[in-house]
Amino acid sequence: MIHTDLCIIGAGPVGLFAVFEAGLLKMRCHLIDVLPQVGGQLSEIYPHKPIYDIPGFPEIKAQELVENLMAQIKPFEPGFTLGERVEKLDKDENGTFKVTTSDHSEIHCKAVVIAGGLGCFEPRKPDIENLSLFEGKGVNYMVKDPEVYRDKKIVLAGGGDSALDWTIFLANIAKEITLVHRGDTFRGAPDSAEKVFKLAEMGKVNLILSSHLTKINGNGHLTEITLLDKNKVESNLEADYLIPLFGLSPKLGPIADWGLNIEKSQIMVNTEDYSTNVEGIFAIGDINTYPGKLKLILSGFHEGALMAQSAFKFVYPDQKLSFKYTTVYGVNSF
Amino acid sequence: MIHTDLCIIGAGPVGLFAVFEAGLLKMRCHLIDVLPQVGGQLSEIYPHKPIYDIPGFPEIKAQELVENLMAQIKPFEPGFTLGERVEKLDKDENGTFKVTTSDHSEIHCKAVVIAGGLGCFEPRKPDIENLSLFEGKGVNYMVKDPEVYRDKKIVLAGGGDSALDWTIFLANIAKEITLVHRGDTFRGAPDSAEKVFKLAEMGKVNLILSSHLTKINGNGHLTEITLLDKNKVESNLEADYLIPLFGLSPKLGPIADWGLNIEKSQIMVNTEDYSTNVEGIFAIGDINTYPGKLKLILSGFHEGALMAQSAFKFVYPDQKLSFKYTTVYGVNSF
Ligand SMILES: Cc1cc2nc3c(=O)[nH]c(=O)nc-3n(C[C@H](O)[C@H](O)[C@H](O)COP(=O)(O)OP(=O)(O)OC[C@H]3O[C@@H](n4cnc5c(N)ncnc54)[C@H](O)[C@@H]3O)c2cc1C
Ligand SMILES: Cc1cc2nc3c(=O)[nH]c(=O)nc-3n(C[C@H](O)[C@H](O)[C@H](O)COP(=O)(O)OP(=O)(O)OC[C@H]3O[C@@H](n4cnc5c(N)ncnc54)[C@H](O)[C@@H]3O)c2cc1C
Repeated sequence: MIHTDLCIIGAGPVGLFAVFEAGLLKMRCHLIDVLPQVGGQLSEIYPHKPIYDIPGFPEIKAQELVENLMAQIKPFEPGFTLGERVEKLDKDENGTFKVTTSDHSEIHCKAVVIAGGLGCFEPRKPDIENLSLFEGKGVNYMVKDPEVYRDKKIVLAGGGDSALDWTIFLANIAKEITLVHRGDTFRGAPDSAEKVFKLAEMGKVNLILSSHLTKINGNGHLTEITLLDKNKVESNLEADYLIPLFGLSPKLGPIADWGLNIEKSQIMVNTEDYSTNVEGIFAIGDINTYPGKLKLILSGFHEGALMAQSAFKFVYPDQKLSFKYTTVYGVNSF
Repeated sequence: MIHTDLCIIGAGPVGLFAVFEAGLLKMRCHLIDVLPQVGGQLSEIYPHKPIYDIPGFPEIKAQELVENLMAQIKPFEPGFTLGERVEKLDKDENGTFKVTTSDHSEIHCKAVVIAGGLGCFEPRKPDIENLSLFEGKGVNYMVKDPEVYRDKKIVLAGGGDSALDWTIFLANIAKEITLVHRGDTFRGAPDSAEKVFKLAEMGKVNLILSSHLTKINGNGHLTEITLLDKNKVESNLEADYLIPLFGLSPKLGPIADWGLNIEKSQIMVNTEDYSTNVEGIFAIGDINTYPGKLKLILSGFHEGALMAQSAFKFVYPDQKLSFKYTTVYGVNSF
């Protein structure tokens, strides 16, 4: 059981920076994220891509920004519960909150800050009969350990960067690799697409375009995949593994049931302090909405600063808040 | 005569970053500042001090942040008019604006962004009879060229960093240097104060504490200064120059007369796009106010981003705006 001042749901850039703003006001924070690492979309979707609109950085790689934010909040020693999904929010009898995760971790806190971004990332799944039967038994939505695929027959499906990148990477590891794509051009980086076309010419990749998956079969473990091409011709492929890479689709999940005002999967907030309609619950970053809202990292930083001023009242109901500049007063840990 | 899309009044951090957000949307900007350099409070008041709450920088010197912002906006080639004060704002017959400066520069633009911070910096002046008669004739509020003071009799007044720093610096240049301070301890950095006390012991600085200026005299040019100590005893000092260093006090100035809704010297804005009550005029950064406002650099960055979306309608009334990530679309100059 963990006790803290603010429980922050989501350890993306906005949740992370909120720890800093809270820390300046002597509030302790605990962060929860369903992903195994911090950084939200930046670490999960585009860690090596440059961002150009973080003020003061003409260019910064997404992962580097996450690392800088971690260094910036270090003095305030936030707690982390990673790899667990927030499932429940209850109000304790004494007016504080209890946040419960999928693994039954319990965090008791004085105020809740939802920095859940686009929600929990879940893989987008192709519409195939029996798919769920083979999940973990030949069907994987992420490549965690490439060694699993050594000398196996692999079918990848998708048309974006992940599908292209993993095809290129696994071509050297797998016994046989097939990339199935619905279209005949790729959405991913042009040079990756070119590489895949070249590997196909060289016979190192079996490229099947304008086709989609319709069925999978096996006996306890996947053995066969059925495809349909644009002329409605069916064909079968032998396979040890199917890796559908159709992107991650975020889901608001249980947060939708907490009595918050929600509009198109976003939580409506007051721009004075980014509070929700429920007292003691704030929402910052991509997950909130208000007139003029832009889903920008720099906006989430501002929202966190204003949120902290207001959350202070829940943590220190009897204290007066005075506004101080870091340049003048420094950053003091606890 | 300059023609541009957005005329930005104030080249502090917030005005500078607004160029970036405008540039992403293909809007050209021209900045005006009364100070001879860009950077606003950061460059003028605390260039060498570290800031700790710029997201992604655990620590950054104020001047370094200004330099980074200049590098970040470089692709968009903003124009600058420095060392001139904005005096007038008129509406052209075709609905655009004309901004006029103290030096009669005219900037024609489609929208106006006021990023004037605390206003124009003006030196705080001591309450001395005749003071204005000797301004520029022995009385200077800033040290522009130290060589002016070589082998002269100088009286400095003040108790902050500027007074201490210039006393130390000019001690090697002046024929005779006197520092007059109302109190008996200094507000400035302790090690600077210590150095001044040491110079006084060595006879290199004439230190007069617990005293203040009451009169000045001269014949076309300053020759004499009268002081009063805490026991109400008057004394006279011969002097070629008096440099009162009582800080800079910002003044809203002519902006107050443009028909904008103003509350306690700040411009009231709508947080949807940081627009003022006058169509086509926006206000961002320290100069604006709204419920929850914090005078933070990071808030000004957010305000600039939302402002740009709305200003776009004035610059490209017929175009639809689509929101794009820099990571995906990059930063394209004109
Ligand atoms: C390809 C791409 C390029 C981009 N480029 C830019 C750019 O150039 N500039 C820019 O400003 N923005 C850019 N963005 C947007 C930017 O990434 C987001 O604005 C930012 O990530 C939002 O941060 P956040 O902390 O609000 O949310 P997120 O980064 O989405 O983090 C939210 C976290 O909350 C977790 N979470 C959600 N629900 C739960 C739950 N119930 N339990 C546990 N954990 C939960 C999620 O797992 C996630 O890690 C880009 C986005 C993408 C996809
Ligand atoms: C000692 C100190 C420490 C600080 N520490 C921090 C900190 O740690 N973190 C933080 O976020 N903030 C801090 N601040 C506040 C921060 O400096 C301001 O929030 C920031 O400078 C605001 O930027 P701005 O661009 O809105 O305005 P400014 O920096 O004030 O720039 C406005 C510019 O507009 C110009 N101007 C105004 N009127 C006119 C006119 N009529 N014509 C021409 N030019 C005009 C001025 O000359 C000025 O250069 C600190 C401030 C001080 C003084």
